[in-house]
Amino acid sequence: MEPRFPGEPLGLIAGGGRLPRIVAEAARAHGFEPVVVRIADGKDDDWSDFKGEYFAWGRAGDAVRFMKASGVKRVLACGTVSRRPDFRSILPSLRTLLMLPTAFRIVRGGDDRLLRNVAAFLKAQGLEPVAVQDVEPQLLAPEGPIAGRAADERERAALALGVRVAQTLGSLDVGQAVVASQERVIALEAAEGTREMLHRVADLRARGRVGRNERLALVKVVKPQQDERFDLPSIGVSTILEADGAGISAIGVSAGKSLIIDFDALVVAARDANIAVVGLPRDEASDPSRADVVSGSEP
Amino acid sequence: MEPRFPGEPLGLIAGGGRLPRIVAEAARAHGFEPVVVRIADGKDDDWSDFKGEYFAWGRAGDAVRFMKASGVKRVLACGTVSRRPDFRSILPSLRTLLMLPTAFRIVRGGDDRLLRNVAAFLKAQGLEPVAVQDVEPQLLAPEGPIAGRAADERERAALALGVRVAQTLGSLDVGQAVVASQERVIALEAAEGTREMLHRVADLRARGRVGRNERLALVKVVKPQQDERFDLPSIGVSTILEADGAGISAIGVSAGKSLIIDFDALVVAARDANIAVVGLPRDEASDPSRADVVSGSEP
Repeated sequence: MEPRFPGEPLGLIAGGGRLPRIVAEAARAHGFEPVVVRIADGKDDDWSDFKGEYFAWGRAGDAVRFMKASGVKRVLACGTVSRRPDFRSILPSLRTLLMLPTAFRIVRGGDDRLLRNVAAFLKAQGLEPVAVQDVEPQLLAPEGPIAGRAADERERAALALGVRVAQTLGSLDVGQAVVASQERVIALEAAEGTREMLHRVADLRARGRVGRNERLALVKVVKPQQDERFDLPSIGVSTILEADGAGISAIGVSAGKSLIIDFDALVVAARDANIAVVGLPRDEASDPSRADVVSGSEP
Repeated sequence: MEPRFPGEPLGLIAGGGRLPRIVAEAARAHGFEPVVVRIADGKDDDWSDFKGEYFAWGRAGDAVRFMKASGVKRVLACGTVSRRPDFRSILPSLRTLLMLPTAFRIVRGGDDRLLRNVAAFLKAQGLEPVAVQDVEPQLLAPEGPIAGRAADERERAALALGVRVAQTLGSLDVGQAVVASQERVIALEAAEGTREMLHRVADLRARGRVGRNERLALVKVVKPQQDERFDLPSIGVSTILEADGAGISAIGVSAGKSLIIDFDALVVAARDANIAVVGLPRDEASDPSRADVVSGSEP
């Protein structure tokens, strides 16, 4: 996606994590002038090299006005939001109060719907929501081997089981990540998020609750009904390190439907940790009846 | 079930928790003479008032011989096994070595299959496996309100969502327990067990990751393909206390297919904690397409 004119302002609603900065720098490199609205986990991140401001949930209306006053027409939202806003604990500004029914709709339902709902909210405010991959398509995961070595037979079996379970969960709009061995499911992500689920697996392993002969795979897939544009799962170096800490030796993500954050660093980290990172074929990853979904991970 | 003769020995393979003792005392009251084989989590429990011994996994063959030498023909296995046996870390006795292929089959697959596999193993050894409810049918959960107050509207919605997700997970042979609010799934049990899942929910709530207006329900249901006889989920006072600690205000279990441990104490605990405990109707609880599965919880 190109800016409509050189230096076009691009609204960037930035939660926590590495992704918002990577996107902001890519947008700048592509000729946009990012206007960064920090929210949630992004509150204390250093964005001093970009124009922007932090807005609490109760000031959503002011954030929209701020972006519009900065000439923003297109807006991109990304990053982590680990704490659900609680409208009863904040004092909304008058401007936000007027759009409170809309704001409530944003935060209702699964956390995973948050970014999607934010996009719908922006649209209702007359702004055009754009997705991370619109600005930087290279962030999308490719199909087949992505990093590290190839998955072995037990890991392929673990990935296949993980995909089957993750797809079924996804059809219920629950979670995105599953940890499985070749013979059973070890952990399922719900409201706690992937990182905390991985810490749990590390803990289970440390306490002997995972067998020594179990090879573990982490699977993060797109939900069947997931809005592909605004809510893609992502992996990065921290995912590799946390998976390694949990004794996980294979990671599968949906090809073309998940984001790789810091590709070069991820390749190094996967090699160092001896972890197989695989892009699960799009069609197969979305069909839970296929048992051979990870056959593409063979070199 | 009656003993075949007064004082008939009944083999009791006892894991951890309260259930094995309740069963042993019920069996004794019914005229059996329990012979207690402690395993796994039951290792350090005090069973000095019953005949019996502790056996490590590597001595499964000796345990069988011990029971047979005690005149045991029928055997009941119950209690918790939180740590998977690892045959590479133990030195099996010669007797166990001869049945190692069978023993491996026991511990393969989900942890939830363990008791069922133990039952199959006992049968192969010429012993007759019996289920907890054969000895004490009164332990089975009734349908409808069980303890505490009636579930309110939001709790019924949370129970319905929890049942839907738990049934779907169960069809994949994963976990038995789900925590949901009226609008989303908060936690899913896999290898960590119900207690640790509840601690996680308590932690999520303490960190503001569960909204103040979310009413939480814990659902424990039987898996569609679960062997009803040897592997029923159970709840007891500790479940109530842990659920209360996690801010959960409603609990649903499969009527006629789950065990209530210490009924009287559970009623007191549920009342004190102001928690609604509901027996989910059998037919409805096994049909995930029914949205009104918890209508039976109305007084």
